[in-house]
Amino acid sequence: MSDLPKIKLSTDSYKGVRDFFPEDQFIQNYLLNTIRKTVEAFGYDEYNASPLEPTELYASKTSDEIVNEQTYTFTDRGGRSVTLRPEMTPTVSRMVSSKIRELGLPIRWYSIPNVFRYEQPQKGRLREHYQLNVDLFGVSSIQGEIEIINMASSVMHAFGLEDNDFEIRINSRKIVNAILLDICKLEGEATKTVVRLIDKKEKLSKADFETKLSEILGEKAPLINTLLSSQNFDEFISHLPEGMKAAEGISEIKVVLEKLEKLGITNAVFNQSLMRGFDYYTGIVFEVFDKSPENRRALFGGGRFDGLLSLFGAPQTPAVGFGMGDVTLRDALESRKLLPKYTGHTTLHICLPDMKYIDDAEELAQIIREDGTAVTVDYSEKKIGDQIKYAEKRLTRYIVCVGENELKYDTYKIKELKTGKETELAREEIPAFLKN
Amino acid sequence: MSDLPKIKLSTDSYKGVRDFFPEDQFIQNYLLNTIRKTVEAFGYDEYNASPLEPTELYASKTSDEIVNEQTYTFTDRGGRSVTLRPEMTPTVSRMVSSKIRELGLPIRWYSIPNVFRYEQPQKGRLREHYQLNVDLFGVSSIQGEIEIINMASSVMHAFGLEDNDFEIRINSRKIVNAILLDICKLEGEATKTVVRLIDKKEKLSKADFETKLSEILGEKAPLINTLLSSQNFDEFISHLPEGMKAAEGISEIKVVLEKLEKLGITNAVFNQSLMRGFDYYTGIVFEVFDKSPENRRALFGGGRFDGLLSLFGAPQTPAVGFGMGDVTLRDALESRKLLPKYTGHTTLHICLPDMKYIDDAEELAQIIREDGTAVTVDYSEKKIGDQIKYAEKRLTRYIVCVGENELKYDTYKIKELKTGKETELAREEIPAFLKN
Repeated sequence: MSDLPKIKLSTDSYKGVRDFFPEDQFIQNYLLNTIRKTVEAFGYDEYNASPLEPTELYASKTSDEIVNEQTYTFTDRGGRSVTLRPEMTPTVSRMVSSKIRELGLPIRWYSIPNVFRYEQPQKGRLREHYQLNVDLFGVSSIQGEIEIINMASSVMHAFGLEDNDFEIRINSRKIVNAILLDICKLEGEATKTVVRLIDKKEKLSKADFETKLSEILGEKAPLINTLLSSQNFDEFISHLPEGMKAAEGISEIKVVLEKLEKLGITNAVFNQSLMRGFDYYTGIVFEVFDKSPENRRALFGGGRFDGLLSLFGAPQTPAVGFGMGDVTLRDALESRKLLPKYTGHTTLHICLPDMKYIDDAEELAQIIREDGTAVTVDYSEKKIGDQIKYAEKRLTRYIVCVGENELKYDTYKIKELKTGKETELAREEIPAFLKN
Repeated sequence: MSDLPKIKLSTDSYKGVRDFFPEDQFIQNYLLNTIRKTVEAFGYDEYNASPLEPTELYASKTSDEIVNEQTYTFTDRGGRSVTLRPEMTPTVSRMVSSKIRELGLPIRWYSIPNVFRYEQPQKGRLREHYQLNVDLFGVSSIQGEIEIINMASSVMHAFGLEDNDFEIRINSRKIVNAILLDICKLEGEATKTVVRLIDKKEKLSKADFETKLSEILGEKAPLINTLLSSQNFDEFISHLPEGMKAAEGISEIKVVLEKLEKLGITNAVFNQSLMRGFDYYTGIVFEVFDKSPENRRALFGGGRFDGLLSLFGAPQTPAVGFGMGDVTLRDALESRKLLPKYTGHTTLHICLPDMKYIDDAEELAQIIREDGTAVTVDYSEKKIGDQIKYAEKRLTRYIVCVGENELKYDTYKIKELKTGKETELAREEIPAFLKN
């Protein structure tokens, strides 16, 4: 019905989210496909879920407090509270828990969902982004961490980044917990408070940080400060009390660093300040840090979270994983000119000197498409020159005209637009020519 | 921190949405990839957008009223009204309008977004589903409809459906409008009321439908009923007043049916009751209807909507497209056993008789992965028999053991699990063997 209302609608998207025009989607597909290929080589299977989750899923408050303060939460028409997932770990834990007995451990899963956070949009932070999530359930040994960190490194290499472009920072919650419990005699909430303070260390002035640390730790603050200021793993260990030098967390870090080196990974380093926000981490935590002078920042991270599945009534199950966002990844690749140039994917544009040949053009197009080759037909009735310009604008590879002479002599000139090279073919030879 | 709260969380997803476990995602990827391949052969470019849209986008009420009554709409933390998109057409119209001058017509675009509707979940209807949307902007001639309907038919064929499995029902809003205006002297809202009534005809009893039609049309009701009851296009035309037998809508339907037949499409039929819910359609509308006795229903449809872009202040632009949902598609394929069987994608599982060979196993795995082949390593320390069972459960193609003898003699037995066939290889021969 052509009596549409006379109002003017805005062409703007919702604030803080992205429209993916074909040139953007081309880059997005490059990112997703490169990630897919890499993680599937490690035997990881893809899963997915709806962005709509029952709000109760996030009720355990194991996530970073910021995540919970920034969710999109609303009540549906049936009175249920719904949340747009702010991260994927609760969802994957829910799904694995629901079928853990039939799935068979270990489980290697990945997904690249969109996740949502209500925050002020700024560089590297949007209200919706895509996030690779890989998780390994059922491996309690340190091999789990090795595999996950190795995979994180492989994803970076798959995008053309090299070991000297980034750093893999590694710490262990076991060390943090042991220090806070055995040296500082802290437990529960007090531990979390210190963990969060250290997590924000880089954002505070040195004086501010030390004041706050003193407030919580009193006379133990200087030792903790010395430990946090150590320049490397050996120096860090040297400051530990004798009884802790061989603690489980310490030996795990040693093994991880050694084994990663054996796998050819030269950029893994111990970093005692690394906490990662999430309270569910129980062992090794790690972070991939961009060393580029213009872009010094954490790109993504992960770690071991052995306790989460038991929240769903599933047996206690070891788990280790990481999440990698597309926005920061894209920025890191863009600043290094590592993103591919947009190429069209249409192989042939059929130009029509006269609409009376349209059925012949359509028939030719149909035959070529059956071979899986992309073809468009020009119905514009414009001059041939304009039809060619359109094909060029879309980065189409070849053009051909279908007109009186072509049909009469069964001879078609296939012209490659970039080189200008022409190839004369009979109609039946065209599909095979285009395919090769 | 291991002091997680002691509550039990539900493993249920939100009502009416789906969890995609790897076996479900495998089917989903088959659907998406088959669709992608088919529409890209027609030269369509992929775009995407966020499911979050400003509620104003749907304020024009051009959509089916049901869509607007069933949206997920809420207010964000900044006081903006946000809607989870219930369909993609407003989004693509918004995006195209925003860049129409630089994009260059015609525009061929597709996307496979998830869309949301709050309704009671039932077979074929969920609160979230994925929907292929293809749209051709800038072609005012009937070639636009031909291309779009041809593409819809090609998608069906790509899934193994044949012409006798389904019917392509075609009607024209121009005919409907001409009849209602010229014969029934109806305009505006009254036209919409009749269109909606005819749209719901199948859901009403014959008597109920005729009563309601009489209430609106009075003495014209019998003629309209005769037109609606006509068995084919010729009979329909025979009942039209002389002056309407050659109307634009009539000749367009003729051309569409003829041209589709020339393209080898044998199952396109005129259907004068077909309305499609959306008020923005302005010309040809069509629907793909499943003829299977157990599943007689509309699978999807589309049509011409020439007026929509002008709502965004863009020049009046011809447009034609369709939307195809994954849930109904999956049901139609499943009932015909046309869905593929799940296959794992891991090529090799490395079994470990003893964890002391783990570094050698990891090194071997790393080399194979560099070739893009999927490998998993077994850290379970279980008996070899159990390690093999795990590989079988995951439908892994080959297994190999890495132990003392293999390392000593550099001879590895690669066993294909399905056939039991073993191949003895030196380590360096393994990657190439697995790749072929």
